[in-house]
Amino acid sequence: MFSEKHKAAGVAYPQGFKAAGVRAGIKKSGNLDVALIYTEKVAVVAGVFTQNQVAAAPVHVSKVVVGTGLAHAVVANAGCANACTGEQGLHDAEKMAEIAAQELNCRADDVIVASTGVIGVNLDMAKMEAGIKNAVKELSKDGSVNAGNAIITTDTYSKACATELEIGGKEVRLGAIAKGSGMIMPNMATMLCFITTDVDIDQKLLQEALSEITEISFNMLTVDGDTSTNDMVVVLANGAAGNVKITEKNADYVKFYAALKEMCIELAKRIAADGEGATKFITINVHGAKNFADAKKVGMAVANSLLVKTSLFGEDSNWGRVICAVGYSGVKINPDKVTIKYGGIPVYANGIGVKFNAEDMKKILSAKDIIIDIELENGAANATIWTCDTSFLYIKINADYTT
Amino acid sequence: MFSEKHKAAGVAYPQGFKAAGVRAGIKKSGNLDVALIYTEKVAVVAGVFTQNQVAAAPVHVSKVVVGTGLAHAVVANAGCANACTGEQGLHDAEKMAEIAAQELNCRADDVIVASTGVIGVNLDMAKMEAGIKNAVKELSKDGSVNAGNAIITTDTYSKACATELEIGGKEVRLGAIAKGSGMIMPNMATMLCFITTDVDIDQKLLQEALSEITEISFNMLTVDGDTSTNDMVVVLANGAAGNVKITEKNADYVKFYAALKEMCIELAKRIAADGEGATKFITINVHGAKNFADAKKVGMAVANSLLVKTSLFGEDSNWGRVICAVGYSGVKINPDKVTIKYGGIPVYANGIGVKFNAEDMKKILSAKDIIIDIELENGAANATIWTCDTSFLYIKINADYTT
Repeated sequence: MFSEKHKAAGVAYPQGFKAAGVRAGIKKSGNLDVALIYTEKVAVVAGVFTQNQVAAAPVHVSKVVVGTGLAHAVVANAGCANACTGEQGLHDAEKMAEIAAQELNCRADDVIVASTGVIGVNLDMAKMEAGIKNAVKELSKDGSVNAGNAIITTDTYSKACATELEIGGKEVRLGAIAKGSGMIMPNMATMLCFITTDVDIDQKLLQEALSEITEISFNMLTVDGDTSTNDMVVVLANGAAGNVKITEKNADYVKFYAALKEMCIELAKRIAADGEGATKFITINVHGAKNFADAKKVGMAVANSLLVKTSLFGEDSNWGRVICAVGYSGVKINPDKVTIKYGGIPVYANGIGVKFNAEDMKKILSAKDIIIDIELENGAANATIWTCDTSFLYIKINADYTT
Repeated sequence: MFSEKHKAAGVAYPQGFKAAGVRAGIKKSGNLDVALIYTEKVAVVAGVFTQNQVAAAPVHVSKVVVGTGLAHAVVANAGCANACTGEQGLHDAEKMAEIAAQELNCRADDVIVASTGVIGVNLDMAKMEAGIKNAVKELSKDGSVNAGNAIITTDTYSKACATELEIGGKEVRLGAIAKGSGMIMPNMATMLCFITTDVDIDQKLLQEALSEITEISFNMLTVDGDTSTNDMVVVLANGAAGNVKITEKNADYVKFYAALKEMCIELAKRIAADGEGATKFITINVHGAKNFADAKKVGMAVANSLLVKTSLFGEDSNWGRVICAVGYSGVKINPDKVTIKYGGIPVYANGIGVKFNAEDMKKILSAKDIIIDIELENGAANATIWTCDTSFLYIKINADYTT
C-alpha cells in the first residue's frame, strides 16, 4: 500500500504549490465545492481528457490550456458539471479561468478549469466568482484536504496521495487529489485527478509519461461502465525541486515515471474501492491473453457484468457468471482451457466447476478485497482491472440524483 | 397490443401440437420444472442459438437437431442450466433427448433439448427421467400453461402468445412460450423461446425467416447486458394446417413472415417488461442514424447504461445520462444535432437542456411504460430497443442466486 505519511499535504506537498477548498453554495448540501491549486512559478502541464464526444465545457477550455504547455492554477467545482450547457457553458468555464487569473495575477489561458456534478445545469457564476475569490484568499500549504473535499460528489471520501523520490541528489515531490465514484469507465482519462510535482521536466516528456501511464492505471478502472462527460487527469510540474531538468528518457526520467505510475495506479485503485455504493474492492487479473487489448477486453467484460458485481455483493461464488462474461467478451477463447480462481482458489477449469471448500470460499468472499484470476492460455499478455461490487446503495444513489 | 384470446392455448394452439409441464424436483422451490412440446407429425425446425462461446450442453445438442431440419419434440427444464458441465453435461443433454424419444416413439435426434438455471451444476438425471416420463403422460391440448411455467426461473410470469392467420383459405396457427428475466442481452438469439405452428413451409425458408426476424425482435432486447450461455429460439412447423406448402417467397410467405415477426416482437417486449426486478418497460427509439447498426449501437449504449436505468427506476428526468451514453456509444455523432425526448417531451436539443413542465414530466415518468426518442440527424436509419429499469429488487435477486 502507498505511504499515507504526507497524504494530508496532498497537492500542496511539492514545493511552490498551495491549495484551498471553500464553500460557494454550488452543492445543495452546502459542503465545500470550489477547489483551487496554485503554483507560484508557472508549471509545465500535461493532461488527458474524456473521449466522450459529449465533453463538458471545462474539458474544451482545459484542453486549450494543456495545448499551451503551461499552467499556473487549477480551479474546479463540484455540484454542477457544466456539461450540455452550450455557449453559455463555454463562456462560464472561460470566466472561471478569468476570475482566477485576475485574482492570482496570472494569464487566464494558464488556468485549468474543471467541473463535476449534475449534467445540463448552468453554473451560478455569482456564487462561483465569490467562491474563487474566497479560495484565492484561503490558499495555503495546508489547503489540500479542503481542495480534495471540494471536488468530491458521491465519493465517500477524498482520494489524496503524496510521495517523494530523489533525483540527482534533489528531493522531488508529488501530490494528488482525485474524485471518482459514479459514471466511471475511463476511456483515455476518467474522473477528476489533479497531480502536482516540483520536478523539472520537459512538457512533452511529461505528457508522454501521463498518456502512457493513464492507459495502465485510470483506464483499467470501471465502476459502472459509463464514460463521463467531464473527466480529466492533469499534472502540473513547476520545477521547484531544482533537479537537472529532465529532457530525455534517462535514468531520472525512469525514476520519475515509476513514481508517477505508482501514484496513478494507487489513485485508480482507491477510486474503484470507493465506487458508488461499493462494499467490495475487486481486482480482476487476466493472464495468458494473446495481447494486452484482449486481456483488458476480457477483464472489462467481467468487471462490467452486473451479474458478477451483484453476486460479489452477495458474497456468492457464482463463477458461472464470470465464465459467461468471458464467453461473450468478444475475445476468441477456448472455454476448456480457461481457469478461474477466487482468492487463489480454483473454481473453474477444463470446462467444468472445480470443487472447493465452502468455509475457505466464505473467508475469501466475506473480505473487503477480492481477487479474481482468469487464465486464458491464449498467449503471454496480462491485464489487471479494478472495480467494485454493485449494491442496493448504488441503486439508491442513482435513482434520485438530480431530484 | 397482441391478442390475448388464445394465450392459454399457447404452443398447443396450432393443430397437431400438445404440451405438458410437470414437477420433477429440479427447481429448489418445487415448482413446475420440466416442459414438453410434442407434434404428432414430424415438423420442420428452425433455430437460433446464443453466440456466447461458453454455450451450454443442450445448445450443442439442439444445434445438431436443427441441422437435421426436422423435430418431433422439445424437452426443456428450468432450475439447472447444464452449462459448464463438460462431457457429463453433453451426455446428460443427449440422454434427455433419448428418454423423451423412447417414450414418444420418435428419433432422439428429432428432440430439441433446452435447460435454464444455475450454471456449473449437473442435472439430476434420475429426477429428469421421471419428469420426462411423467410429462409424456400429461401431454394435452391444455398443457401449454404448465409448459410455460416449467421453463421460467426469476420471471414473474410466463410469456405466452397464440395467433392465427389465413393462408390460401386455410387457417394457420402460431403459438409460443418464452422465458427471459436475467442474463439477457441477445446476440443472435436469447433466452428460451419455443414457437409452434401448423403452417406447411420449407425448412430453409423457415430458418431464413427466423434468423431475420430475430435480428429485429429478440436481438433488440436487453435487461442487463449479459449474453447467456443457454439461449435459443426454436420454431417447429408441422404442416397440419394443410395450406399449399410455402416453398418460395410468395404472398403466403409474406403473410406468415409478418405473423411470426409480430409474435417475436411481442415476446421480446414482454421479456423486457418482465426483466429481473423491473418496475418500468422502456422503449428506446433511435432515429436518423447512418445505418441500422449505428442506430442499434446508440440504443444499446443507452439501454445498458446502469445510470440511465437507475434514474428511470427513480422516475428522474436525468437526460444528461442519456446524452452521455450516446456520446460514448462508439457511434460518431454531433452533440449539437442530437434531440432527446421523454414521452414525446423534448428535454435536450442544440447541445443544451430544454425547459419542460415538471408536472407533465412527472406523469410521463410515473407511468409503467416509458418511451425515449433519440434523434441523431446523421441519416435515415432507425432502431427500437426494449429494456427495463434497474431496481433494488434486481440487486436482491442477483446477490444470492446460487446460495
